[in-house]
Amino acid sequence: MPTMKDVAKLAEVSVGSVSKYFNGIALKEKTKLAIEKAVKELNYEPNIYAKGLKINRTNTVVLIIPSIWNPFFSELTFHIEKELRKHEIKLILYNSENNIENEIQFITMSRQNKVDGIIAVTYSNIDEYISESLPFVSIDRFFSHKTNFVSSDNYSGGRLATEMLIKHGSKNLAYIGHGSKYSNDTISRLNGFKDYCSEHNIFNQICYNTGTREEFEMEVDNFIKKFIITKKIDGIFSSTDAHAFYILEKLEDLNISVPEDVQIIGFDGVKSSKREKNYLSTIRQDIEEIAVQSVKILADTIENKENMENKTNVKIPVTFLSGKTTKPIL
Amino acid sequence: MPTMKDVAKLAEVSVGSVSKYFNGIALKEKTKLAIEKAVKELNYEPNIYAKGLKINRTNTVVLIIPSIWNPFFSELTFHIEKELRKHEIKLILYNSENNIENEIQFITMSRQNKVDGIIAVTYSNIDEYISESLPFVSIDRFFSHKTNFVSSDNYSGGRLATEMLIKHGSKNLAYIGHGSKYSNDTISRLNGFKDYCSEHNIFNQICYNTGTREEFEMEVDNFIKKFIITKKIDGIFSSTDAHAFYILEKLEDLNISVPEDVQIIGFDGVKSSKREKNYLSTIRQDIEEIAVQSVKILADTIENKENMENKTNVKIPVTFLSGKTTKPIL
Repeated sequence: MPTMKDVAKLAEVSVGSVSKYFNGIALKEKTKLAIEKAVKELNYEPNIYAKGLKINRTNTVVLIIPSIWNPFFSELTFHIEKELRKHEIKLILYNSENNIENEIQFITMSRQNKVDGIIAVTYSNIDEYISESLPFVSIDRFFSHKTNFVSSDNYSGGRLATEMLIKHGSKNLAYIGHGSKYSNDTISRLNGFKDYCSEHNIFNQICYNTGTREEFEMEVDNFIKKFIITKKIDGIFSSTDAHAFYILEKLEDLNISVPEDVQIIGFDGVKSSKREKNYLSTIRQDIEEIAVQSVKILADTIENKENMENKTNVKIPVTFLSGKTTKPIL
Repeated sequence: MPTMKDVAKLAEVSVGSVSKYFNGIALKEKTKLAIEKAVKELNYEPNIYAKGLKINRTNTVVLIIPSIWNPFFSELTFHIEKELRKHEIKLILYNSENNIENEIQFITMSRQNKVDGIIAVTYSNIDEYISESLPFVSIDRFFSHKTNFVSSDNYSGGRLATEMLIKHGSKNLAYIGHGSKYSNDTISRLNGFKDYCSEHNIFNQICYNTGTREEFEMEVDNFIKKFIITKKIDGIFSSTDAHAFYILEKLEDLNISVPEDVQIIGFDGVKSSKREKNYLSTIRQDIEEIAVQSVKILADTIENKENMENKTNVKIPVTFLSGKTTKPIL
């Protein structure tokens, strides 16, 4: 089979020019015609074009996540690495530890090291550091600049959790959530909860805090004293499974029975392995599909199938996973 | 400050020759003397030597693990990435999914991509694929070829688990473990158990299986029927926490009380996050220290501080972590 080198030789131009040709970079008319003639003569195949495109690539992609030492991100990373491997792309991993300086440093380093693209889960304000020329996919967060974006359908998930609490027998609901200072799509879970409650005239209370972890937990403790011990609330939608487990622990200390006294539905549906059974009733994110779509969008952008100007937003459907923290439907 | 380029210019040699000089590669006497003269004249500093050494380096290291979607490996990877970052080395992650063909492919790709080194946790027989010239650190496994090797002190851990079962009140002990076809250091946990029992004349039974996961679980089920239901055994040392949780589930189904009827001690001490409390009594591996030592040995080998011929074996001490599956010491 002919190679790009053969094309260059026959056309009497450099391999670089042939590469430029296939990358759509402007060339002298004479050069362009010579390459086109050689391509025809050698019957140079389109699938080899794709290989040719890779000449300017490092076949590496950077993944920036808060911490791999977290079951949600380890499951996500597992699937992203697997998907990238199908494209013969290597994964460079960075843990930001939720530190914005780390995030900025990683993005700067990624540009310097000429990686082919970045997939990032960041919860701080790094918009201005993202180069318009570097393929980028954001997971779970909106940027003020237009960017490719993949997340669960958090709004529908918020509505679904609320609907399920009611269907499983709760009457008075609470949303408990820990937010970020910077806009991210998890706020849609709260919006879904609010809208469903208002459409169905459901009594509800909201415990939402954007402070530190300690401040959030203090507010949850007060909220439980005010609304759960007094039995004003009998159904809780927690913005994440991790917070749901914190709430469960607190309720256990107070001898409040779950799901008899109060039902709880979390959000994430993370298992620490494929085999683990679920205890918590929750809205399950389709982490594998988030990975598949993120890699697909990034790969398409890298391979110029997608114009860099076009940005893709994908919302992945979520499902309700019945566990032991909701009652059976009567 | 003078650069390597300045040295090359003054010495009237190529930058490549200067790089070779600092990498200890043989050069013509004339070239060597010219470089030495230029280094002196420019007062070229040792810390800049270090930068110079990096010229032939990609500053990337490959980590091969069975799966990042496993709390032990996600904690290990978190610390390895953090340590590598201190050395300004990027981490490329591969999940082998315990597939030997994947492992071989990753090692071959790593050599082709000229990474600076490999850290690997493999449980299959990949010895022959490891190049003698590529810095390599193995975690948790012995290779028949001499190689750098870091693991927990599994033998002492096995002895410690056994001693703790006795101290907490058990009389008749069992070891339950799932082994690999290929030699790896987790077998030392069994050896520690055996030796402690024989030195102290402790009645013991061993349930050890190297088959598939299904075969292992079937053997455990039979073992429980034969020895636990009949109260012949009142203390179990499980080779991993994951297996301990499987055993706990089985015992719960059979209404056998833990720790009243039978105590259990696992091995690993993995938490799915920094914050999680431990339920299982276990032998805790110091995963952070395993990461620190692995990266240190690899970095030393890469930087030629360690001769490639010298191999380093490090055993990291383990500790007993008291949970709810052992009784309080009376």
